[in-house]
Amino acid sequence: MSPSRIAAPSLRSKVMSAHDAAALIDPGSTIGMSGFTGSGYPKEIPLALAERIETAHAAGDPFAVRIWSGASTGPELDGALAKADGIEFRMPYNSDPIAREKINRGEMQYFDLHLSQVAPMAWEGFLGPLDTAVIEVTGICEDGSLIPSTSVGNNKTWIDCAQKVILEVNSWQNMALEGMHDIYYGTALPPNRVPIPLVRADQRIGEPRFRCDPDKIVAIVETDTPDRNAPFTPPDECARAIAGHLIEFLRHEVKVGRLPQSLLPLQSGVGNIANAVLTGLIDSPFDDMTAYTEVLQDGMLDLLKSGKLRVASTTAFSLSPEAQLGLNRDLDRFRDKVILRPQEISNHPEVIRRLGCIAMNGMIEADIYGNVNSTHIMGSRIQNGIGGSGDFARNAFISAFLTPSTARRGAISAIVPHVSHVDHINQDVQLLVTEQGLADMRGLAPRARAELVIEKCAHPDYRPMLRDYYDRARKGSYGQQTPMLCGEAFAWHQRFIETGTMRV
Amino acid sequence: MSPSRIAAPSLRSKVMSAHDAAALIDPGSTIGMSGFTGSGYPKEIPLALAERIETAHAAGDPFAVRIWSGASTGPELDGALAKADGIEFRMPYNSDPIAREKINRGEMQYFDLHLSQVAPMAWEGFLGPLDTAVIEVTGICEDGSLIPSTSVGNNKTWIDCAQKVILEVNSWQNMALEGMHDIYYGTALPPNRVPIPLVRADQRIGEPRFRCDPDKIVAIVETDTPDRNAPFTPPDECARAIAGHLIEFLRHEVKVGRLPQSLLPLQSGVGNIANAVLTGLIDSPFDDMTAYTEVLQDGMLDLLKSGKLRVASTTAFSLSPEAQLGLNRDLDRFRDKVILRPQEISNHPEVIRRLGCIAMNGMIEADIYGNVNSTHIMGSRIQNGIGGSGDFARNAFISAFLTPSTARRGAISAIVPHVSHVDHINQDVQLLVTEQGLADMRGLAPRARAELVIEKCAHPDYRPMLRDYYDRARKGSYGQQTPMLCGEAFAWHQRFIETGTMRV
Repeated sequence: MSPSRIAAPSLRSKVMSAHDAAALIDPGSTIGMSGFTGSGYPKEIPLALAERIETAHAAGDPFAVRIWSGASTGPELDGALAKADGIEFRMPYNSDPIAREKINRGEMQYFDLHLSQVAPMAWEGFLGPLDTAVIEVTGICEDGSLIPSTSVGNNKTWIDCAQKVILEVNSWQNMALEGMHDIYYGTALPPNRVPIPLVRADQRIGEPRFRCDPDKIVAIVETDTPDRNAPFTPPDECARAIAGHLIEFLRHEVKVGRLPQSLLPLQSGVGNIANAVLTGLIDSPFDDMTAYTEVLQDGMLDLLKSGKLRVASTTAFSLSPEAQLGLNRDLDRFRDKVILRPQEISNHPEVIRRLGCIAMNGMIEADIYGNVNSTHIMGSRIQNGIGGSGDFARNAFISAFLTPSTARRGAISAIVPHVSHVDHINQDVQLLVTEQGLADMRGLAPRARAELVIEKCAHPDYRPMLRDYYDRARKGSYGQQTPMLCGEAFAWHQRFIETGTMRV
Repeated sequence: MSPSRIAAPSLRSKVMSAHDAAALIDPGSTIGMSGFTGSGYPKEIPLALAERIETAHAAGDPFAVRIWSGASTGPELDGALAKADGIEFRMPYNSDPIAREKINRGEMQYFDLHLSQVAPMAWEGFLGPLDTAVIEVTGICEDGSLIPSTSVGNNKTWIDCAQKVILEVNSWQNMALEGMHDIYYGTALPPNRVPIPLVRADQRIGEPRFRCDPDKIVAIVETDTPDRNAPFTPPDECARAIAGHLIEFLRHEVKVGRLPQSLLPLQSGVGNIANAVLTGLIDSPFDDMTAYTEVLQDGMLDLLKSGKLRVASTTAFSLSPEAQLGLNRDLDRFRDKVILRPQEISNHPEVIRRLGCIAMNGMIEADIYGNVNSTHIMGSRIQNGIGGSGDFARNAFISAFLTPSTARRGAISAIVPHVSHVDHINQDVQLLVTEQGLADMRGLAPRARAELVIEKCAHPDYRPMLRDYYDRARKGSYGQQTPMLCGEAFAWHQRFIETGTMRV
């Protein structure tokens, strides 16, 4: 481990073990953790804290903390702390399976909110004080400023708000990351807010490093541990079909003059459908594309490599281990093609609407009117969270939601009479895309939407059931703006819970 | 009628009767109408058009048009055209009872969307071309520019987009309106959008009049007809109780330093609860207040008169007949206190989030998790529309929804196990307020929200039923993040449809 990662001489005395650093965290305290997907989260202190919590519990002492993060993190953080029953409150966005299980058993409070709003809400004060920030950085400069890691998330805000700051300096991270970040220091609380001066995805409006009052730093832990993101799943036939429908739509929009040849800035979620779309764009007629998004995944890296994508603005890398190793070896090549921003900027509604993003997000289910459930299986069991999907969907130039038409080998239809939970209201959902086809619902009233969604998106096995429901709702509904049968709107979900399938 | 209302000499030759002007509108065409609430809508041409449509129908000829507006209009427009079966498609927002009935019988397509998005979508092109704009103005200047009327709505966009323009010059409107409007001409389609330069509610960023290519004007009709808004209903005890809870909350937020003494810009819907809040603010300790809203109603006018409210930015007056007459007599007094803007600015998410509005909107029902239904009775029957509530609620500094805890003499509970339609997801709803109390859900996870909403907001008659549902959901739900019983989530609604009451 090179000592040069901590260039500020006065801070070297604060280096200690993760065990000692974790001892500085009090039971009941609120901790702002770095991390956005499996990138840039602290890797050793949360493990040491989990150990401390387990020891306390073994001795019969209560010990739990409140965790604020950027989004999801890695198993060493959410997984370890959840396993130790150490998290009493968690915000925002979780995808850790152990934490998910605790949440869905009712053992952990999980506040899931729009990612753009986390930092502003922390400043507004009603969430209570932030005791400690635990932030992974790539290095510490001589002037005490901090070189961010592979995600920015809410780190700027945690560092500014916290009473004390603990750093993990991870020498596994490439020093060439320095200069890729753009940390904007112009946010404020109203009435002092001013326009965010971003007008292009490739524009820089901030500084390359975090400012940090050195007196707030109470511990520095040196680590050398890789990020841990999910392995890459190659797009299957279904994902390629979804991507094909969407790219065909984009080609048509360019043809009729409603989109420029370089499209508009792309936003794309994670997962193999998103990767299929991005990979599909490599062979598309579009060029000089840009991305304004919250995660940079394998497909987007490939699109950058191809030269078709000119620049990607994001708040985090979210790469498979292979892609990450490749990037780490080759980072210089991407230094002027990737900009990493705080998530309050990457997800800012003001910027997203101004740039006119093309938003492409996954979902759990949609109903025939185009309302989308992104988060709750059978209405009650949280999968991950709303993340940035609402920031993008409501403000995008084109808002698309993508999913296979069925799940669990056909036992679940992704198109249902009535979604069991709503994350995106029909007004915020323009396109629904499944491997069956694409429903372009722009400008359509609810009944016209229903006809289209059933026809274009539903799996043929479920189409007659949807038609039957809709036809009967057309006759028996209380009102006909959005026909609905209250007595059986959730019958499919109830049947799945009782029998394991939505089929009759 | 004074000829001075049409100061441009070349345009005087285009003056004709409403009957002749209506003859210029083709069957099947799309018409962009002025109007936002019962203010500033054309009053004679729609009536003449309705007559023409009725004549065509009597002769067995089909005749219907597509109507785009600002929001709701008056009975001479939506009412008359709907009665004539003359509207095949209507966007956005309707509150006309005849049109509502047609929509809910499935006889009219109604596309209800966020008011901020109407103008941008018209420019994006997928809604199809706009054939004719029919716009009420206060007068026409010598240079051909148009003095707007008592609402701005989407008029700028309709005038710019339409192939031909028909004007109603209404001499009932006060010429002193000139100069109160602020028409911003800086919007664009991406990738050419730039920041909206508004940083304070009282700021002017545009021009006082509409630009209009005189060659596009095909007809001018002179009228002398009052706006028609709803009469004022004095706040009852219930409305005053709701207002009291909200004002107490605001006092507390000021006390703990989370809001300035002048609060932040107020947004308020229409109706007697909104009026009660605004009236209550007259006797509050806050001063130097501002409003950034879409409608200026009686209560806000009183607040302006009191001197407590310094300035109101809006897109429309929405005054009772008495208040409107009073304003018309006394308009000079308000010329520097009211700014009327296009609704794409009054409702722009960018500006609302920057200013940090305090959003106060009515609703039909909320569920125990704070999801809000603003539009659909029993999930299917549209009442009015989402209007600007989504623009404000998602981007506000504080987002409050207000309602009496019951409706129809107690047969309907405004707090239900699961909302039958979602307009505002729980993440966008911070406060629920009924006459029973106020639930401050900021920063709370779903289960904590449910406890609070049942306790604070539900009517005592329904509280045990909600507790019973929630307790059983805590045991029997598929997941425990947002406990729900799919088999009976809409049982209350179904019972109301079948028996006329939600009570058992």
